[in-house]
Amino acid sequence: MSYPLPLKIRGLGRYLPDRIVSNQELEQRMGLAAGWIKKKTGVMQRRWVTADMSASTMAAKAAAEALENACMTMDDVSLILNASGTCQRVIPDNAPLFQRELGYGASGIPGMSIHSTCLSFLSGIEVAAALLAVGQYQSILLITSDIPSRGLNFNDPESASLFGDAAAAAVLSLPGPQESGAIHAYRMETYGEGADLTTANAGTGGYPYADGSKPEEALFKMDGKRVYRFAQKYGRGFLDRLAPGFAQEMQRISAVIPHQSTLLGIHALKNHGIDLEKVVITLPDYGNCVAASIPLTLYQAVKDGRLRRGERFLLVGTGAGVSVAAALLTY
Amino acid sequence: MSYPLPLKIRGLGRYLPDRIVSNQELEQRMGLAAGWIKKKTGVMQRRWVTADMSASTMAAKAAAEALENACMTMDDVSLILNASGTCQRVIPDNAPLFQRELGYGASGIPGMSIHSTCLSFLSGIEVAAALLAVGQYQSILLITSDIPSRGLNFNDPESASLFGDAAAAAVLSLPGPQESGAIHAYRMETYGEGADLTTANAGTGGYPYADGSKPEEALFKMDGKRVYRFAQKYGRGFLDRLAPGFAQEMQRISAVIPHQSTLLGIHALKNHGIDLEKVVITLPDYGNCVAASIPLTLYQAVKDGRLRRGERFLLVGTGAGVSVAAALLTY
Repeated sequence: MSYPLPLKIRGLGRYLPDRIVSNQELEQRMGLAAGWIKKKTGVMQRRWVTADMSASTMAAKAAAEALENACMTMDDVSLILNASGTCQRVIPDNAPLFQRELGYGASGIPGMSIHSTCLSFLSGIEVAAALLAVGQYQSILLITSDIPSRGLNFNDPESASLFGDAAAAAVLSLPGPQESGAIHAYRMETYGEGADLTTANAGTGGYPYADGSKPEEALFKMDGKRVYRFAQKYGRGFLDRLAPGFAQEMQRISAVIPHQSTLLGIHALKNHGIDLEKVVITLPDYGNCVAASIPLTLYQAVKDGRLRRGERFLLVGTGAGVSVAAALLTY
Repeated sequence: MSYPLPLKIRGLGRYLPDRIVSNQELEQRMGLAAGWIKKKTGVMQRRWVTADMSASTMAAKAAAEALENACMTMDDVSLILNASGTCQRVIPDNAPLFQRELGYGASGIPGMSIHSTCLSFLSGIEVAAALLAVGQYQSILLITSDIPSRGLNFNDPESASLFGDAAAAAVLSLPGPQESGAIHAYRMETYGEGADLTTANAGTGGYPYADGSKPEEALFKMDGKRVYRFAQKYGRGFLDRLAPGFAQEMQRISAVIPHQSTLLGIHALKNHGIDLEKVVITLPDYGNCVAASIPLTLYQAVKDGRLRRGERFLLVGTGAGVSVAAALLTY
């Protein structure tokens, strides 16, 4: 058994917080010139949660829509796979918190988490495809829910204005006899030498656990310029390593769903063989939503009719680590 | 394709910090009567890291031993899978940090993390078996490295005296033509209604990220009695759900490797059909090492000749969430 593996995205859902945070609001807060944020990041507005919301409450709403979209209920779910880039608590992982919020806290439905920062949804797709292929689960509820707004450093306007909160979910299973759906290729490359370029140092090596650590270490920190150069360096040839002769593959692809890192990063996909006309962009409306950006943008592509059943699409992105990853699928 | 899946544990390694922390030291620190800790938890001593150590430095040492034991090098590794119960940083996940510490930060070897608290190694085994079975990777370096000592609450003597720091690693691949090795069954059940019984509330829902959160929320908190009752309730019949007719299966099993939760919890396995004579116990020497306990105890079982090539064994445990999980394998 090997790739391609059968994989059906049976339903998609998302949740966006009600509160819209404008560039004007943030420019005033951080003392920036009007228009600075749009010019620097490409973000026009983003959604941020209010204090009463949690990753779980967002996750449950996104999951409910994905299940409805799949014509399924929680009783049909055999695994809850959390694939967020941020955690609600360090212990336990998000999966049992999501399960409880969905009203299934006594169900026994197993839950676990996958984490590869902004690429967690991609890793989740890879793992889900393998678990479904070996018959371990019949249907997997893959959920991403991120609240970067609570870890921003307002002394760093570029990163503080880039991020938005969101959740998105997908119901995955094997396709039925008359149904489309497959994962044709998957590849991730990790370059730990870039681990300090994008970081939030809360944990046993940072605040509040390590002796002498300081509160500001826990805030999100990104060296945007170096991350961009890093991504360009390691992105070179990556898509040909994913699928040899990628240029031909590109012609068969209907939609490219990139991680919404920055507008500069998305536009740079053209340097790596991507046809920008096929790229779906949600960054201006929602910002970079960490791991939720890819499934949120996938949701948008389907909603807008840019990706239809039976068509090929590419998920692609870079994430803290630094990792580069992509998956080629049929919807 | 379905279970049993071929799975070879090609090498095992561990790392234990040099610093031994005695019960006497902790009893003095917390003002406890001599002998209180042993009586309450069954732990005689534990290892704690010094300030210069990190999850990565422990992970790299355990991984190096596992690779040597497998007669392999990092160049043979096609995926680094972190399966720790604690994180060194919230972003990025541990995998790229471990890769960099191993001197392979420019290698591109992909890395990601699996998290199901104390059961992370078990989840890692399940995911690795599926990824190997579908041919996505040739060999997986599964690493667990936990430093609970940095999140203890010394106002709660029971949990503060229970935990130890450790790392353990396994090199996994498909067995060769003449080799043994399989995973026969795997099962996890999660009951999110118990999510508050064992927790460390650092993250977007706790300290330092949520407004109004307090530093003590980030410390490890466990309601030992309720966790025990919870585990007994949901453990009932679990092994028959893992492998129908488990009583017969028990006779074929050479070694049972439980999570080293507490001595009480380990002894309670007899209520669920486990022959205690086959149970391997490392708790008195090392304490509860979070997710590292299961692979550390597996290492010990092999080292002591209690588990040999071709023999069957059971990994089993409960973890924060609350989840119950077990895997039946051939070594």
